[in-house]
Amino acid sequence: MLFLWVCAFVEQYACFVVKCSIMNSTYVLTISCADQSSIIAAVTGCLAQNGCNILNLAQHTATDINMFFCRIKFEATDSFDLEAFKKSFTKLEEQYKLTWNVFDMSKKKRVAILVSKTSHCLYELLLKYADGELDCEIPVIISNHPDLAHVATSFHIPFFQVDTKKGKAEYEADLNEILAQYNIELVVLARYMQVMSADFCEKWNHRCINIHHGFLPAFQGAKPYHQAWNKGVKIIGATGHFATQDLDQGPIIYQDVIRVNDTRSIDEFIRMGKDVERRVLYEAVRRYLAHSIFVYQSRTFVIE
Amino acid sequence: MLFLWVCAFVEQYACFVVKCSIMNSTYVLTISCADQSSIIAAVTGCLAQNGCNILNLAQHTATDINMFFCRIKFEATDSFDLEAFKKSFTKLEEQYKLTWNVFDMSKKKRVAILVSKTSHCLYELLLKYADGELDCEIPVIISNHPDLAHVATSFHIPFFQVDTKKGKAEYEADLNEILAQYNIELVVLARYMQVMSADFCEKWNHRCINIHHGFLPAFQGAKPYHQAWNKGVKIIGATGHFATQDLDQGPIIYQDVIRVNDTRSIDEFIRMGKDVERRVLYEAVRRYLAHSIFVYQSRTFVIE
Amino acid sequence: MLFLWVCAFVEQYACFVVKCSIMNSTYVLTISCADQSSIIAAVTGCLAQNGCNILNLAQHTATDINMFFCRIKFEATDSFDLEAFKKSFTKLEEQYKLTWNVFDMSKKKRVAILVSKTSHCLYELLLKYADGELDCEIPVIISNHPDLAHVATSFHIPFFQVDTKKGKAEYEADLNEILAQYNIELVVLARYMQVMSADFCEKWNHRCINIHHGFLPAFQGAKPYHQAWNKGVKIIGATGHFATQDLDQGPIIYQDVIRVNDTRSIDEFIRMGKDVERRVLYEAVRRYLAHSIFVYQSRTFVIE
Amino acid sequence: MLFLWVCAFVEQYACFVVKCSIMNSTYVLTISCADQSSIIAAVTGCLAQNGCNILNLAQHTATDINMFFCRIKFEATDSFDLEAFKKSFTKLEEQYKLTWNVFDMSKKKRVAILVSKTSHCLYELLLKYADGELDCEIPVIISNHPDLAHVATSFHIPFFQVDTKKGKAEYEADLNEILAQYNIELVVLARYMQVMSADFCEKWNHRCINIHHGFLPAFQGAKPYHQAWNKGVKIIGATGHFATQDLDQGPIIYQDVIRVNDTRSIDEFIRMGKDVERRVLYEAVRRYLAHSIFVYQSRTFVIE
Repeated sequence: MLFLWVCAFVEQYACFVVKCSIMNSTYVLTISCADQSSIIAAVTGCLAQNGCNILNLAQHTATDINMFFCRIKFEATDSFDLEAFKKSFTKLEEQYKLTWNVFDMSKKKRVAILVSKTSHCLYELLLKYADGELDCEIPVIISNHPDLAHVATSFHIPFFQVDTKKGKAEYEADLNEILAQYNIELVVLARYMQVMSADFCEKWNHRCINIHHGFLPAFQGAKPYHQAWNKGVKIIGATGHFATQDLDQGPIIYQDVIRVNDTRSIDEFIRMGKDVERRVLYEAVRRYLAHSIFVYQSRTFVIE
Repeated sequence: MLFLWVCAFVEQYACFVVKCSIMNSTYVLTISCADQSSIIAAVTGCLAQNGCNILNLAQHTATDINMFFCRIKFEATDSFDLEAFKKSFTKLEEQYKLTWNVFDMSKKKRVAILVSKTSHCLYELLLKYADGELDCEIPVIISNHPDLAHVATSFHIPFFQVDTKKGKAEYEADLNEILAQYNIELVVLARYMQVMSADFCEKWNHRCINIHHGFLPAFQGAKPYHQAWNKGVKIIGATGHFATQDLDQGPIIYQDVIRVNDTRSIDEFIRMGKDVERRVLYEAVRRYLAHSIFVYQSRTFVIE
Repeated sequence: MLFLWVCAFVEQYACFVVKCSIMNSTYVLTISCADQSSIIAAVTGCLAQNGCNILNLAQHTATDINMFFCRIKFEATDSFDLEAFKKSFTKLEEQYKLTWNVFDMSKKKRVAILVSKTSHCLYELLLKYADGELDCEIPVIISNHPDLAHVATSFHIPFFQVDTKKGKAEYEADLNEILAQYNIELVVLARYMQVMSADFCEKWNHRCINIHHGFLPAFQGAKPYHQAWNKGVKIIGATGHFATQDLDQGPIIYQDVIRVNDTRSIDEFIRMGKDVERRVLYEAVRRYLAHSIFVYQSRTFVIE
Repeated sequence: MLFLWVCAFVEQYACFVVKCSIMNSTYVLTISCADQSSIIAAVTGCLAQNGCNILNLAQHTATDINMFFCRIKFEATDSFDLEAFKKSFTKLEEQYKLTWNVFDMSKKKRVAILVSKTSHCLYELLLKYADGELDCEIPVIISNHPDLAHVATSFHIPFFQVDTKKGKAEYEADLNEILAQYNIELVVLARYMQVMSADFCEKWNHRCINIHHGFLPAFQGAKPYHQAWNKGVKIIGATGHFATQDLDQGPIIYQDVIRVNDTRSIDEFIRMGKDVERRVLYEAVRRYLAHSIFVYQSRTFVIE
């Protein structure tokens, strides 16, 4: 049996959670291509012809690899026809060899949070969500332990416990079943203490964000704070990254650090690190939801 | 007599100072106006029609005051005609009520540094300049004391000492004479311990940058580190700002801070603060030279 | 009627909240006096004679005011007699004109949290408390609004709503009655949007901690983020301080800051500031509970 | 021939360099041992019996490894007999199995700076030294290139160029000859682009400080900024550490970091990194000169 425990009263209280303000006709357009002349004028011209008003344009030419990345947030008038826009944009795609995407910001991403026993990252995401500072839906929380069910309950979100003892293939099948059932588009590993299989990482490629409690690429793997203390580093950190089959090697989305005196014990590293971890995970997820992350040659370019 | 001391051997060694790499046909265009539809498309279209290639576009709509600010760095082809471009851009000016400017980046700004007795800010600017990290000319250093003449000498820059005992009007006339003689476009007060007159501030409005050794708007005026220590603040800072006749009240360009333990003495505040001051002044000047600073309603918007 | 709403099921679930690990025989000794010779040897010798083992000794001589501050954490053996120790220490007090105190760390301080409508500071304190990272008891939460009752409930802590419309004297009397009833030793204003009277501040002098959402001494009073935005500061901050009758002028305990780009709106200042506020308030309370704060001449010396 | 170029006029201007204020009778005592009861009382008692006045005492018990580290700065009266003190302290050494040392702070450490072609770390050390903020003597600067001779000259410090083409053994013999001639006690590698031999590292064990332009233990070896950029890290840093024969693996003394946007190029990483490098090297050297560094089990404990 798959589901050990589910909050029964979810439906009834669903209206309780504060929702982000909906901006019906806002879109985000992301573009990447080899750097070339007049690309910005071509793109902004196309938007103007389709009656779009640019709210924010951020671009970057990575001169080291001659690549162009651009994120445009625009507002569309009533007469805006998304399909017509896509068709006219396809012409630019051919001309400039663009990789591009357009997102309707009124359609919120559906995010699942996976946790084990520690609550600080889970609470951070839920509190930001409740405060309207995470522009998504969080329809389900999944864990390999029952410990944090009460947190899910207090935020009126269904909580599922999966049984990892079944074997990795079986339990990941359960996991995928729940994720499918809730139409999940992004998986967030919020201190979820299980290594995901290559298959799972492949399936959720660039759609699964993990928090590593160390400043990558140093201190990969287990017990990063113990590693850091034994090395005598003076600054510790955490890393939000896309999960890949190479453990703790996926593209880095966000990092932050905190200075530690040599009078700190390993336990204090762990305590102080928690605040960094929760902040980093939140910032990584926020950038994902804003469509600010470009992945190219195994690294990210976050363009804000 | 105005000039007490000048390095005689300047001409001969002038080639010694490392120059920034010259990009002959790079321009920066700055625009501000009330926010309105299609402004980016209009501007980028005008640039494309004039054969310009946008290298970097940074824009910001300040929703709190409904203002649009934009900085565009572009490269021009050989056939580019600056005057023709200005003429065509004037039409946009009328249509959108733009405030705008275009700068030829190959024409380096001429910067004068004013100092008194402490050398850390002066050294910072000169070392960055020598390293090619300040895109300007520094043809003259001026002081009300002789102490730092040797620093100017070692960088082969003429050094003038002005006599403040003459009276403010007379000595500022001397100052302006030197500044005029060297065709100075930006005055940098690098811990220059003289209050400038209202006339001087007016003449050099938004072209004179001061470093205040406190985190403004707290701790204005004299002895900010003493004020900070007596108040028991836990973080101290410095502020780079445009000089105005209201002492330490001009638009803020850049700020930075450093954490101080309560075991620090006032002397240690002063010592630690020096590193913050020099960094802040350099960053403020760099932003000015990059034409990244917009001043509106007594504050700056630095758009990078 | 004083109490509008109380969680009825508190008693029954009180055991639910995770308690900090108790160290039965640990004490903290705090000492301040004019700086003088041999004071550390005298104090540590007295501790050794009483069979105490020093776990941590932190001291600071503030040379600017010639004052000595010392905090000693020590462990006592079974035979330790606190009263005998105090008697022997009184001799040192006379000899060196000491101000001193000794705290039994097994007796946890009883802390009341006062809130209004925003939850981020409250959640921070409760989550740290539940995680065993605030070494105190939190027996009661008080508010002038009903909005956060559900948070108190989910942590199984009694919640009282006070009626400020009664008039300041009457409602503060209610407040003091609740605080007395729960034997409160420290009052924490966690974004409590009421100005306390001079009488209240006097009664709770150096036992009432407020979070101000600005970097004091700049931006005192209302709407500090609006003030900061209009001034165009590049860094915003928050300040944890003892409440005094001079609004936002009490001794500063802890401060932190965050860099803000000029592309941030006032609303974003407010959002970003929340993370700073909750961190600063937690750090201020933690320092209080560790007996690390010395107040002298209207400022604190936090000796860790 | 060993010396290619020496400033001839050094003697004559030697008085030019600002010296740190001398505190004739100040000492620093460092102690480490297994943690045990009453150790602080025993040590401070011994100091009191010898007529010493403690100016500052910093200690730390590393509970993870059960070690005690202590640094005591004390002032001695005229009648103080250092040899008698050492004799009496030797009794404590036996009783508590102490590792200890006592330093007369009036005897300044003699420091050699080794450089290659980049000047930012050299300038930082020399400017701090000239400002009285590095409590040492810097009698010699050595390089494998002639480029920075003029910097040495402008600070009136002898400059030697060594010839690395001789072969490592021969040229390191030259190096050691110069270091011996100037009675050097600490070697600072200020972006010196040569790998030192195992013999050299052994000879100068814990007396040779290197700056690595990466956040160790990540990005060891060559081109750390290129490595960092290709990995897409969001924060870069620098590490001051003792040189050991395992390249970039020696005990870490100090680290600092700076946030980098993904819009930064490798060249900008290098430019921004310079400010971190110079700060980190200065802080590492300052801690060494203050005798604040304890090395134990391949890591440092910096006790301030």
